[in-house]
Amino acid sequence: MELLEKTLSSIGKPDHLSAERASLRLDSLTKPPGSLGILEKIAIKLAAIQCQALPELSQKIVMVMAGDHGVVEEGVSAFPQEVTPQMVLNFLYEGAAINVLSKLAGAKVVVTDVGIKGEPIRHPNLKLRKIRPGTRNMAREAAMTREEAVAAIEAGIELVNEEIKKGATLIGTGEMGIGNTTPSSAILAAFSGMDVEILTGRGTGLNESSLKKKKQVIKKALEINRPDPDDPLDVLAKVGGLEIAALTGVVLGAAAQRIPVVIDGFISSAAALVAYKMNEESVNYMFASHLSQEPGHRVILELMGLAPMLHLDLRLGEGTGAVLAFNLFDASVKIIHEMATFEEAGVSNKQ
Amino acid sequence: MELLEKTLSSIGKPDHLSAERASLRLDSLTKPPGSLGILEKIAIKLAAIQCQALPELSQKIVMVMAGDHGVVEEGVSAFPQEVTPQMVLNFLYEGAAINVLSKLAGAKVVVTDVGIKGEPIRHPNLKLRKIRPGTRNMAREAAMTREEAVAAIEAGIELVNEEIKKGATLIGTGEMGIGNTTPSSAILAAFSGMDVEILTGRGTGLNESSLKKKKQVIKKALEINRPDPDDPLDVLAKVGGLEIAALTGVVLGAAAQRIPVVIDGFISSAAALVAYKMNEESVNYMFASHLSQEPGHRVILELMGLAPMLHLDLRLGEGTGAVLAFNLFDASVKIIHEMATFEEAGVSNKQ
Repeated sequence: MELLEKTLSSIGKPDHLSAERASLRLDSLTKPPGSLGILEKIAIKLAAIQCQALPELSQKIVMVMAGDHGVVEEGVSAFPQEVTPQMVLNFLYEGAAINVLSKLAGAKVVVTDVGIKGEPIRHPNLKLRKIRPGTRNMAREAAMTREEAVAAIEAGIELVNEEIKKGATLIGTGEMGIGNTTPSSAILAAFSGMDVEILTGRGTGLNESSLKKKKQVIKKALEINRPDPDDPLDVLAKVGGLEIAALTGVVLGAAAQRIPVVIDGFISSAAALVAYKMNEESVNYMFASHLSQEPGHRVILELMGLAPMLHLDLRLGEGTGAVLAFNLFDASVKIIHEMATFEEAGVSNKQ
Repeated sequence: MELLEKTLSSIGKPDHLSAERASLRLDSLTKPPGSLGILEKIAIKLAAIQCQALPELSQKIVMVMAGDHGVVEEGVSAFPQEVTPQMVLNFLYEGAAINVLSKLAGAKVVVTDVGIKGEPIRHPNLKLRKIRPGTRNMAREAAMTREEAVAAIEAGIELVNEEIKKGATLIGTGEMGIGNTTPSSAILAAFSGMDVEILTGRGTGLNESSLKKKKQVIKKALEINRPDPDDPLDVLAKVGGLEIAALTGVVLGAAAQRIPVVIDGFISSAAALVAYKMNEESVNYMFASHLSQEPGHRVILELMGLAPMLHLDLRLGEGTGAVLAFNLFDASVKIIHEMATFEEAGVSNKQ
């Protein structure tokens, strides 16, 4: 609990002076002011995070957290639970979408077991921080104890701190956990008070009757556990997940170190929402990457005031949308560094 | 007219067999079917264009067409007309946004003067295909004769053919022409019959009163010229532009050679709409890159059934959005080539 509290209290304010200087520089470049839209906003936000008018990015990392979900026994996923460790092995052998897209983006993939069920996976590149072998079934009891949730968050903080120490300048969030859109919808429903019916989607591809069941399971989990929306840790512990908690830690840890975090899809955004509820200043370090097919995703991003850049109808997770967006960060940084000014190019400014 | 007619009649059908084989391959990869959304759709569409199940991309080009607009004398732009040649020089000296973003994307920028007003620009990298020094003022008369419009389209066809011969496998469209959102809105209004009020935006940054004037000018141009929506060449000649016509040629030329074209923003999309109206099959070779701030852009893309991938509030043109989207094409091609199958990775498929 100490590390979490220390991290929460270390999250600083954005540096408005650097943001303003970045903004002035952007307006001096050979384009109508603001005409590069969100690319300009990224540069300004990075400047405020990094406390320098000309932001820089070098090493990029995607932190993929893996964990299982007791609630899967209720039949809320289209894929069997053994797919969690199978896909983690696929990440480690570099055959998954996240590997292909990270290679293209020049990003490193860091995979952590924070709560996979079954036989332990052994691989030199897998980080082992298993809190417990999957959560409990939230349709019957709390998914985690408060202590387990804190331990998973703190694992995320420690892991991201490790990468930042090694030179990471941009962090993407990613996850693997069969069934994890179910706790994500539950977290969103708990905080927003909105109807589970409109916040719940097909995940990896449920049919109509399974979707109906999934909604009932989420409603039951909320009824039984009664998570307190004013106590983010209570929500996370009762209806969250281990990999979600670890990602909450990644977001908070990065924010505390003034490192920008690119949020992937629905599950990552649920983790970011918990971080936001714990300390609203953390949103100043977050960027939304894409808008997922899950209906609740738009709602979470609106709650935090974040606008997604990629509209690709993704619903894979793993961090794929975050890593696809890394290119836009490179673009933004190159724009502010490399474009000619009106003066340099001898171009007439606005009439 | 002969080259245009030959090009229009050479646009072939997509290869459904290759598309189907690409689709089967994508469904064998370790992800829920369809979960990579538009990235999967890109791969399938590229397969249909290239007549091969595993599409490939190498050299990428952005074709930037520059031209001036007589209608600028009505006060429809926030920037003075001399900015067209000034920005073209900026492209040639590689100081503009399109240069910075193309370098990042590994793409070549090809700049052509199809109708800049004033002193001729001399630079070894500038292609000279000037049809006339700017269009006529469409608020008083037709912007171009039918012959001039055809000549500009055919310049675009010839230029894109040249690049394809040299090895281009992916073409982006770009433009420079102070005032060119005005003819673009007029083209869209002529084809759609929709109200000019809702199809017209602030371009590079008009204030409220200038926006009002711009709308009146477009209405007047439509009243005076009465372009025939069933005759795309009539619309293009009367209320279009030289760079817009050249881009129509780029789109048609690429489609005829089975080369995919990535459409940039509002002006490029107006050019693509003319191509689509001349031969609807051309849309099978087009991809929408981004959704611009111009209110008419969404309408044009919907008319052609194209979905924009990047939501970045861009309103710069030059081809910037197209070039930013190139990364998603690389991603799509790498996904279909490099991801492991369920069988290779030993991952259980859907229940």
